[in-house]
Amino acid sequence: MNKENTAIVTSADKIPRKSVQAGSGTSMQILIGSDIAPNFAMRRFIMEPGGGMPNHTNSVEHEQFILRGRARVGIGKDIYEVKSGDVVFIPRGIPHWYKAEGNEPFEFICVVPNEPDHIEVIDKTSS
Amino acid sequence: MNKENTAIVTSADKIPRKSVQAGSGTSMQILIGSDIAPNFAMRRFIMEPGGGMPNHTNSVEHEQFILRGRARVGIGKDIYEVKSGDVVFIPRGIPHWYKAEGNEPFEFICVVPNEPDHIEVIDKTSS
Repeated sequence: MNKENTAIVTSADKIPRKSVQAGSGTSMQILIGSDIAPNFAMRRFIMEPGGGMPNHTNSVEHEQFILRGRARVGIGKDIYEVKSGDVVFIPRGIPHWYKAEGNEPFEFICVVPNEPDHIEVIDKTSS
Repeated sequence: MNKENTAIVTSADKIPRKSVQAGSGTSMQILIGSDIAPNFAMRRFIMEPGGGMPNHTNSVEHEQFILRGRARVGIGKDIYEVKSGDVVFIPRGIPHWYKAEGNEPFEFICVVPNEPDHIEVIDKTSS
């Protein structure tokens, strides 16, 4: 069967984590990758308390669902307090950053289109 | 600002639920819709215990993350027991059904491309 016909059912906890070099205390799992899915990829990010990502832009949009924990998230000129059960849409090209808060990991689903993602860090000190 | 530049941060619990007519005890929320997002839409499905969806096909693929509860899910000729934290990819055109089990609602994220979705119910008795 080619990739268009292959179903997947698995536990996210079985999928390897990769450290996200641009962040601190941040790892990422590719839950459903562009090798399988024709249009977009589903990832899970895990940020340890105090960890996060500096202010940066992506050339692709983000559709996110917060699974666990809480964080401050900067998007453009606004800062939000987000928590489990929140939904976040970050348009392509808009600067954004994350800072995990509280005592448990901050975890979220992040879906991106299968397009090249050019990432540009704007300010390493802003998270 | 046009839709390409509008960030969204909200609680999923504030978004209206719509009953899914083809299912039983099943409702759906559009968390990030095609009116906002350029490439794909994020929805949350909620199935009450004993509820579900009959065997059907969609003309679009599904990328899913199970948020809560458990269910039996049929995909093609296979039946899976899925639970919170599981990841499911259902290719376009593959018959599938859901039956929520246990004592709490079965809830999952389901991401689909911004394409017309032709839904065909195959067997109303199979879930």
